Amino acid sequence: MTKELIEVLHLGIKEKKTDGVCIKLPDMSTLGMISTKNKFPAIPVIINKRKYPYSRVKYLFINSGNANACTGNVGMANAKDYVLALSKKFGCVSENILIFSTGIIGQQLPIKRIINSINKCDFKFKSSLKSASKAIMTTDKYEKWVVKKFKISGIDVEIRGVCKGAGMIEPNMATMLAFIFVDIKMTNKIISKILHNCAAESFNKISVDGDMSTNDSVALVATGLNSIDLTNKKHYQSVEQNIKSVFRQLAHMIVSDGEGATKVCKLSVTKAYSFIQANQVCYSIANSNLFKTALFGEDPNWGRIIARLGSLNKIRYNSNDVVLKINGVTVFKKGIPTTQSNSKKLVYSMKNSNIDVEICLNSGSYNANILTSDLSKKYVQINSKYST
Amino acid sequence: MTKELIEVLHLGIKEKKTDGVCIKLPDMSTLGMISTKNKFPAIPVIINKRKYPYSRVKYLFINSGNANACTGNVGMANAKDYVLALSKKFGCVSENILIFSTGIIGQQLPIKRIINSINKCDFKFKSSLKSASKAIMTTDKYEKWVVKKFKISGIDVEIRGVCKGAGMIEPNMATMLAFIFVDIKMTNKIISKILHNCAAESFNKISVDGDMSTNDSVALVATGLNSIDLTNKKHYQSVEQNIKSVFRQLAHMIVSDGEGATKVCKLSVTKAYSFIQANQVCYSIANSNLFKTALFGEDPNWGRIIARLGSLNKIRYNSNDVVLKINGVTVFKKGIPTTQSNSKKLVYSMKNSNIDVEICLNSGSYNANILTSDLSKKYVQINSKYST
Repeated sequence: MTKELIEVLHLGIKEKKTDGVCIKLPDMSTLGMISTKNKFPAIPVIINKRKYPYSRVKYLFINSGNANACTGNVGMANAKDYVLALSKKFGCVSENILIFSTGIIGQQLPIKRIINSINKCDFKFKSSLKSASKAIMTTDKYEKWVVKKFKISGIDVEIRGVCKGAGMIEPNMATMLAFIFVDIKMTNKIISKILHNCAAESFNKISVDGDMSTNDSVALVATGLNSIDLTNKKHYQSVEQNIKSVFRQLAHMIVSDGEGATKVCKLSVTKAYSFIQANQVCYSIANSNLFKTALFGEDPNWGRIIARLGSLNKIRYNSNDVVLKINGVTVFKKGIPTTQSNSKKLVYSMKNSNIDVEICLNSGSYNANILTSDLSKKYVQINSKYST
Repeated sequence: MTKELIEVLHLGIKEKKTDGVCIKLPDMSTLGMISTKNKFPAIPVIINKRKYPYSRVKYLFINSGNANACTGNVGMANAKDYVLALSKKFGCVSENILIFSTGIIGQQLPIKRIINSINKCDFKFKSSLKSASKAIMTTDKYEKWVVKKFKISGIDVEIRGVCKGAGMIEPNMATMLAFIFVDIKMTNKIISKILHNCAAESFNKISVDGDMSTNDSVALVATGLNSIDLTNKKHYQSVEQNIKSVFRQLAHMIVSDGEGATKVCKLSVTKAYSFIQANQVCYSIANSNLFKTALFGEDPNWGRIIARLGSLNKIRYNSNDVVLKINGVTVFKKGIPTTQSNSKKLVYSMKNSNIDVEICLNSGSYNANILTSDLSKKYVQINSKYST
C-alpha cells in the first residue's frame, strides 16, 4: 500500500446520501494538522488535539451533516463510542484514528445508526477522491478536489487534495475541512513547516464573512512512496510550491462556492508599515458589507474602500500617499478620485467574475492579500431562512 | 434672543428640495463638539477642527446632498468661499461659523448656486426644528427630532435635538450629523464632559455596518437662558440624564431607520474581564452577517453568536461559564444549548421589532451594550444598485 485508500459510507446522518468517509493511510505516512482556534471547539477537534502529534495516525474518519459541536458530555461519549467501533473493526487502538465532523451545531449524532453502519461496512477502501468529496459536502454546491502531478529529478510525484466549505459559515454549520496527500516521504518537522507555509498562503487568506468555525481543520499527509532529498533546497522549494498551488486551488473553490457569491475578489494591500497592518486592512475591507454589496452591484466604488480604510485608527500611513487601484485602474490618489475613477473601461471590467483591488499605503515595505466574495441578496435569503 | 434660531434654505445641491440649514446661536451659548476620527475627514471636519474650541461660535451652517469629502484643494476653496459669503452676510468673522456637510463623497459642491442662495436669502430665522430635520436628510426615510421638557428647582428646561443618518453609511455618502440644544448656562468644561458622557451612551453605541463615515459630527449647545447651579450634584445628574435620554432617542431613530432594517437589537455583554473586552465582543457580534441575517429571519440562532464569540482570540473567559440569553430566555449554558433554546415562547418573541441579546461572560465585572439592526435583502438591494 503506497497511497491513501478511501471508503465512502452512509452513516445515516443525512437521508439517503453518503455522509461518511474513512481514509486509510500507508504505513510510511506522516501527517501535519491545523485546527480551528475557536474557543468553542467541536468534540473531534478536542479529541484530535489530545492525539496529535503524539500518536501514529493510521485512519482519518470524517462525517458530514452534524458538527458534534456544543454537544457536551453526550457528544464526547458518542465520539468515543464510534472511534471504539472503528478501532475494533481495524484492529488498532483509538489513538491511531483522527476524526472530523462538519454540519449542524448543537445536535447529538445519531450514534446507533453510525455504529451500525460502521459494523456493517466491509471497508474495501475502493472509493474515489471525487466520491469522498461528495460525501463530506454540507451546503457546498459542487465537489472540490484537485490532482496535480509533477516530476523531481525524474521521479513522478502526485498531490491529491479534497476539501469542503461553501465560503460562509452555514447557519449553525461548521465550514471547512481539507485533506491533502502527497506521495513522498517527509519528516514530521518538514511536513509541519510546509503545511503552515501553504495554509498561510491559501486557507488563511480567505475571508467571506469574518467568522471562524468550531470545526475547521486542514490535514496534510505525506504517504511515503517516493524518497526525495528535501535537504536539497531546489527540491524542497519545488515540493512546497506544488503543494501550495493545490492549497490555493482548493481555497479558491471555497470562496467561489460562497453562498450566493457571484464574484471572487483578490484584495491586496501593498507597502504597509508592517505585515500585521497590511493584513488588518485586508480583513477589514474584505468584511465591509458596503464594499461587498458594491462588488455584487458591479460598482467600482472607491469611496467605500477609502472610508473603511480611514476608519481604522491604528494603521500608519499618510492619507495623501494612498493609491487605490481597481482592476488595474488607478481610481484614487493624493486624497481625491482620479479622472479614471468612473471610466467606461473600469465600469465594464466590474462585470468580470474575478476582481482585483489594490490599496497601496506607501508607508513601508509589507504586502498582504486575501480572497473574498461579494454579498448578494441570495446570501441574505439563504442565511435568514433557516430555523434552529 | 434666548434660543437657537433656524433658517432653512434651498442651496441648489438637491433638485427642488431644501438642502441647507443655518442655525443662529444666542450670545450666551457655549458649544461642545465631537467629530469623526476617520483619516480621510471631509473638508468641513478639517475646517471646524481649526476653529473649535478656540473660537466663539455664533452660527452653524449645514448642507445635505454633498459631503465635500475627498475633494482636495478645490473642496477646501469652495468651503472657504461660502463661509466668506456667510460672514459678510452676518457681519461676523469666519471663525464664528462652523460648517457641516453630508451626502455624496468625491464630488465638488455647486459653489456658485450655494453662494447665490446665501446672498439671496434674507435669513429671518423663523424655521422649525422639523423643517431643519427634513433639510439635512439624505437617504433617511423620516425626520428625526426630539423635544424634551423637565424642571429643576422650579425652573423649566427644554432640550431640542435634531439628527440625520439612516443607520448605514450610504453608498458614497457620509452618515450622521446631530445637533442638540439645551437652554441653560454651561461652562465649556461642563458641556464637553456632558457631551462625551452622553455620546458614549448613545451615538457611540450604535453600529449598523461597522463603518465610520468621513463626516460624522455631534454638537451640543447650551444656549444660556436659565442659570442652574451645576456644581450641585443632583442638578448636574438630572441635566445629564435628560440630555442623555434625548441622545439615546435620536440614536435609536438612526438605527431603526437603517436601510432595509426591520429590527433593532440591543446587544449586551455582561461580567466581562474589562470594559474594552466587553465592547470588543459587542461590536464583533453586532457586525456578524450571520447574526444579522438570523435577526432578519427571526431565528433565535444561538450557534452563530457562540461561534462568533469563540472566534475572538483575545477575550478572557472560560467557555463553560458563558451564559447566553435571547429576549430573556437562557438558550446556552455550560457549553451546550438549553432545553429552552428553541422554545415556542422564544421563537414567537423573535417577531418583536426590538430584540434583546445578553452574553454573560462571567469573567469579571464590566458591562457594555450596543444597538444594532438586522441585515435584510433590501439592504443588499439598496447598497448594490448605486453607481459611482
